[in-house]
Amino acid sequence: MQDLTADAGRAIDRAPDGRAVDRALERALVLAARGPADGPNPQVGCVLVDPAGAVVGEGWHHGAGTPHAEAAALASADRARLRGATAVVTLEPCHHSGRTPPCSVALRDAGVARVVYACADPNPVAAGGAAWLARHGVEVRTGSRSGASPHVLDRADRLLEPWAAPWTLGRPWVTGKTATSLDGRVAAADGTSRWITGAAARAHAHTVRTAVDAIVAGTGTVLTDDPALTARRPDGSHHARQPVRVVVGRRAVPPDAAVRRGPGTWRHAATHDLAAVLDELGKDGARRVLLEGGPTLLGAALRAGLVDELHAYLAPVLLGAGTAAVPDLDIATLAQAQRWHTHETHRLGEDVLVVARRTERKH
Amino acid sequence: MQDLTADAGRAIDRAPDGRAVDRALERALVLAARGPADGPNPQVGCVLVDPAGAVVGEGWHHGAGTPHAEAAALASADRARLRGATAVVTLEPCHHSGRTPPCSVALRDAGVARVVYACADPNPVAAGGAAWLARHGVEVRTGSRSGASPHVLDRADRLLEPWAAPWTLGRPWVTGKTATSLDGRVAAADGTSRWITGAAARAHAHTVRTAVDAIVAGTGTVLTDDPALTARRPDGSHHARQPVRVVVGRRAVPPDAAVRRGPGTWRHAATHDLAAVLDELGKDGARRVLLEGGPTLLGAALRAGLVDELHAYLAPVLLGAGTAAVPDLDIATLAQAQRWHTHETHRLGEDVLVVARRTERKH
Repeated sequence: MQDLTADAGRAIDRAPDGRAVDRALERALVLAARGPADGPNPQVGCVLVDPAGAVVGEGWHHGAGTPHAEAAALASADRARLRGATAVVTLEPCHHSGRTPPCSVALRDAGVARVVYACADPNPVAAGGAAWLARHGVEVRTGSRSGASPHVLDRADRLLEPWAAPWTLGRPWVTGKTATSLDGRVAAADGTSRWITGAAARAHAHTVRTAVDAIVAGTGTVLTDDPALTARRPDGSHHARQPVRVVVGRRAVPPDAAVRRGPGTWRHAATHDLAAVLDELGKDGARRVLLEGGPTLLGAALRAGLVDELHAYLAPVLLGAGTAAVPDLDIATLAQAQRWHTHETHRLGEDVLVVARRTERKH
Repeated sequence: MQDLTADAGRAIDRAPDGRAVDRALERALVLAARGPADGPNPQVGCVLVDPAGAVVGEGWHHGAGTPHAEAAALASADRARLRGATAVVTLEPCHHSGRTPPCSVALRDAGVARVVYACADPNPVAAGGAAWLARHGVEVRTGSRSGASPHVLDRADRLLEPWAAPWTLGRPWVTGKTATSLDGRVAAADGTSRWITGAAARAHAHTVRTAVDAIVAGTGTVLTDDPALTARRPDGSHHARQPVRVVVGRRAVPPDAAVRRGPGTWRHAATHDLAAVLDELGKDGARRVLLEGGPTLLGAALRAGLVDELHAYLAPVLLGAGTAAVPDLDIATLAQAQRWHTHETHRLGEDVLVVARRTERKH
């Protein structure tokens, strides 16, 4: 008898429970990550769950001009099984007719009874999907009311954080890079720095270059190291997608500087106002900017709170002396330390990459 | 016809091929790691493979006074299936009657036709098993002739390296520990250092303490930080196994110093000769020593080549100034840098532990 009661309860309340939402959202995150991280559109995944808890469709966004995750998931499903289904999406469904029709309408028209999403859409042009769905008879749940665990909601936030920067930060997402010994030195006492990290770490750094829209270096680094700042493969050939190379600082860029050569474009921002440079890059459509400028530029950006993510490549090397990766930050005591959050760690040959973000977890 | 020939070939040559040896040795390494890392005996695993390639027995050494890995594997097997079998062992079988009879004799008596082992026994009292087996009709293969891949042979070497230190290095295995910001600082500009790393990293450091035989700190650290140097659980209670606490340096240890209290023993070595201190500890039976002494002690040990393994706990914190974890090592240029080898990496909450070793890979 108790079993019958329980079954009846389940039949009435067709919403998936917290664990089912977690499972579906984790799957949606895996799908989302298959999309391009370097495009103008967000990485989004969608899983459709029928009232019995079975996955009946899934999809992700493959990049600008292709169907959104929800549309891809709907297209993958047997329409007959969508009546009363729950759509679990990593981002609020759009309510915007761009190159694709609004997902809000498509979900309602397909008979979806409930939409659970992790992150609200920060883009005012696309937002409003949740409100429209709720007004049109679709139950909408989000955040802690979604039933998902804080851990999974955090993962969704962190996946979208760089893409959302223009709205949440009002400027591009900024990644600072260091390549140091285990004791935090970027160069030995005599200034020699090639190579502290190994080939695998350097190859990884070039794949990061090809995923950003601009690389910024200081004139000091350009004059000292003469870096090309292009994104290259291990064989030296150039990646197809090249970031804009930006040299910041008042000193002149020598006519034979490597940064002037190579594919793509470069520019000289003859200023020390990094915020203005980022603003300008954002207006030109840059969403992701990589600082590769040496300790002076990194220190200025850190002091100004302009670094959102750190890529710290650490080699199992000890130097004991030499140039520190991070210059004085006006931190006198430990309580004032900049505390970051470890987002990911990767082993790259002998080296280790620590990806840290400045943001607190919200959930 | 070709198939028949191939089958006949296999029946005659009953030695497992390289991939089968690799598989068996990898399994033996997994088994070996189940044994205690902190005992006087090595961690050893053994897998018995019959002429058809099937695993017919496996075992590992559970610690001093219990059967060796080979004896455990033989005991786990159906004796009838051992005729013509190959024993794959991570360490050369012993030829020594201690608390257990010699494994060499046991393997031969069981009908094992072939012994493949990764590492030669560095202990002169126990060694000689391979030679005895070869003289008594058992085929013996080791190193590159074993058919195992260099990668797997390296893993076996690295598992046993700390245990083998008394014979290979003539002194205990020395682990140096640092707990730093991502930019390599152990303290902020005003000297504050509690806590840079988080609770998970500190708990891990205490499990390392309980696995070593001695912890060494300098008098400077004792006078400045007054550490207890005991191995404690997160609730503050003491682990059952406590290392000897050793304070090195000429200054007096204050009568109320924390290092004098707590379970286990402590001693003061009123010298700056760290090699002599290690020698003394080795004579007293210490096999593993942990340096927790601050930058001065670590720097002296690194300059003298007395550190075999580094435990670098890195917190996602930036300080920009403050005490460096590693003091001047008389390194002027990058080519003179101490290059280590990343042995393991662990994520510990927000922190990352990089375990690096000084030794080159042999294979």
